[in-house]
Amino acid sequence: MEATVAITEAKQKKGKPDPETLQFGKTFTDHMFTMEYEEGKGWIKPEIIPYAPVEIDPAAMVLHYSQSVFEGLKAYRSPDGEAVLFRPDENFKRLNRSNRRLSIPPVNEELLMEYLLQLLELEKDWIPDAEGTSLYIRPFIIATEPSLQVAPAKAYKLFIILSPVGSYYPEGIHPVSIMVEDHFTRAARGGTGTAKTGGNYSAGYNAQAKASGEGHAQVLWLDGVEKKYVEEVGSMNVFFKINGEVVTPELNDSILQGVTRKSVIELLQYWKVPVSERRISMEEVLTAYENGELEEAFGSGTAAVISPIGELTWKGTPMIINGRKTGEITKSLYQTLTGIQTGQEKDPFGWTRTIS
Amino acid sequence: MEATVAITEAKQKKGKPDPETLQFGKTFTDHMFTMEYEEGKGWIKPEIIPYAPVEIDPAAMVLHYSQSVFEGLKAYRSPDGEAVLFRPDENFKRLNRSNRRLSIPPVNEELLMEYLLQLLELEKDWIPDAEGTSLYIRPFIIATEPSLQVAPAKAYKLFIILSPVGSYYPEGIHPVSIMVEDHFTRAARGGTGTAKTGGNYSAGYNAQAKASGEGHAQVLWLDGVEKKYVEEVGSMNVFFKINGEVVTPELNDSILQGVTRKSVIELLQYWKVPVSERRISMEEVLTAYENGELEEAFGSGTAAVISPIGELTWKGTPMIINGRKTGEITKSLYQTLTGIQTGQEKDPFGWTRTIS
Repeated sequence: MEATVAITEAKQKKGKPDPETLQFGKTFTDHMFTMEYEEGKGWIKPEIIPYAPVEIDPAAMVLHYSQSVFEGLKAYRSPDGEAVLFRPDENFKRLNRSNRRLSIPPVNEELLMEYLLQLLELEKDWIPDAEGTSLYIRPFIIATEPSLQVAPAKAYKLFIILSPVGSYYPEGIHPVSIMVEDHFTRAARGGTGTAKTGGNYSAGYNAQAKASGEGHAQVLWLDGVEKKYVEEVGSMNVFFKINGEVVTPELNDSILQGVTRKSVIELLQYWKVPVSERRISMEEVLTAYENGELEEAFGSGTAAVISPIGELTWKGTPMIINGRKTGEITKSLYQTLTGIQTGQEKDPFGWTRTIS
Repeated sequence: MEATVAITEAKQKKGKPDPETLQFGKTFTDHMFTMEYEEGKGWIKPEIIPYAPVEIDPAAMVLHYSQSVFEGLKAYRSPDGEAVLFRPDENFKRLNRSNRRLSIPPVNEELLMEYLLQLLELEKDWIPDAEGTSLYIRPFIIATEPSLQVAPAKAYKLFIILSPVGSYYPEGIHPVSIMVEDHFTRAARGGTGTAKTGGNYSAGYNAQAKASGEGHAQVLWLDGVEKKYVEEVGSMNVFFKINGEVVTPELNDSILQGVTRKSVIELLQYWKVPVSERRISMEEVLTAYENGELEEAFGSGTAAVISPIGELTWKGTPMIINGRKTGEITKSLYQTLTGIQTGQEKDPFGWTRTIS
């Protein structure tokens, strides 16, 4: 991979959006980073160019066999105006883990970080500063070789696009209602669930529509083998506080290794709150609920950071968690994590990377 | 959907490829069919245009969440020069089943057939006539809305592209070696396995690489729950002839409803060969092998039509089937199906559609 990035500046700059009405992932900045992979040459042509539609062959393999991976992270504006990234190295490590699962050639993580920093340098005015807003960063790789053969492509394109996003909780953090999905499966043992690849996401639309139709915000996914063990919530990892201990499903090849998940565990350990990663069944969650020991529940992910769960419905039976109010641990995690991410709180872990 | 297709002819026509050196899915014809979907308007703008790269927004949802479906069928050149399609209605029915699973709006199957016929009318000279060659037809739909929200898109594009393909067996039909995959999973119960969607295909590349590395042509997939029951072979359905009876795994939500699979079953019933669709475990296959009752095995699919299996390796133990020779039933199925498809044999089932 070449270290020198060719930069072509956009002739016309777009107006910055109103932070009050920003949606997630609908507005994009003036520029994007792109890089290509050619067999025998590796990753070549790193460049920053104006954000615009690109040409793609109708036979490009990504459009047929979904050979693609992506990442998601955020840049926040700190109180003194600097751009702050949260554990970006974890995202680039995971990108390469996803690449391996999808037979996509690996990228040089350090160089990719340099490219991202150059892009952010150019686009820093796009990082919004209103409470709860941020600049969402979406690196992704697609198979571009024009071929209908069912096999890994010989050509790829990597993009980094940037999208200013509004607050996930414009009216303050609030618990949501979740439905346990008994029929549809997000990811199987031996499947692609631990990779951030498109197929895992569109596979969940049917279940999400069913849950929405019954008034729930999201779906809780069970394991694909026995439909017994908790895996994820929507596109977040999930935690339960049971009788003083915080429990999250242990990593397996169908659970995404969330960066926020990892940070929650490390933060709880730092606070000396008992936390364990282990298999947890819905039966165990229900029993804890019936015994009055299900104290809190929440999802974790880049978009919401922490999303408290107020109600969890399994086989038609709703469990009301903490009187539908955000629990103490949930609230502390949200405040500390967003505090560190936005540079408003001290970062004792060295998680943040500040770009002056 | 509008019935009138706007046609823009290519200014320059490409030369036709040499049928002897044709690969699968690498060469495309002069024109393609495209149509768009807009929320509130439905499927609009059906048109035939020159085959060329198209513009796509880097945030197009297909590139991030793999919301896409596809189909595959072939047009053959009959001995009297006509174009022959094999059960195209089955492909369009399946396209809409895939659409439902992937939350993509349905298409009007009859109109889509009309569009395909118009495209084939324009491109009929591209149907090769050498033994075993055909024109592969690839309809596909992709989510084009530029948005990073994890939700069904509000805009789509449908394409039909055409690719002249060489003989699958340039040196005559021959049995292949298959490895049973114990770790990786193609599709889970409740997953997307019964839909023709990209994510099912790239998910299998790792396993295919492992099998190729050990000298096998393809992978045999087991069920994602118990890793016990036979599901598919590579991207084909699979059949075993055991003690005079032909057995294929019964359809479930992780097995693709192959058009060739259906035709094989109907042809065997017509011939009064015992055939059954039921769950079949690898244990049962191995026991039949040890008892000398595993008489034939083959895969079925649009690309190869019928692919005899000469060797099947499970947990390191190879089973040699019919002395690595193509079995009688396998051979009859191949000859009759390809005979009907190419218009060289009588079609007592009304499966073919001839375009004069």
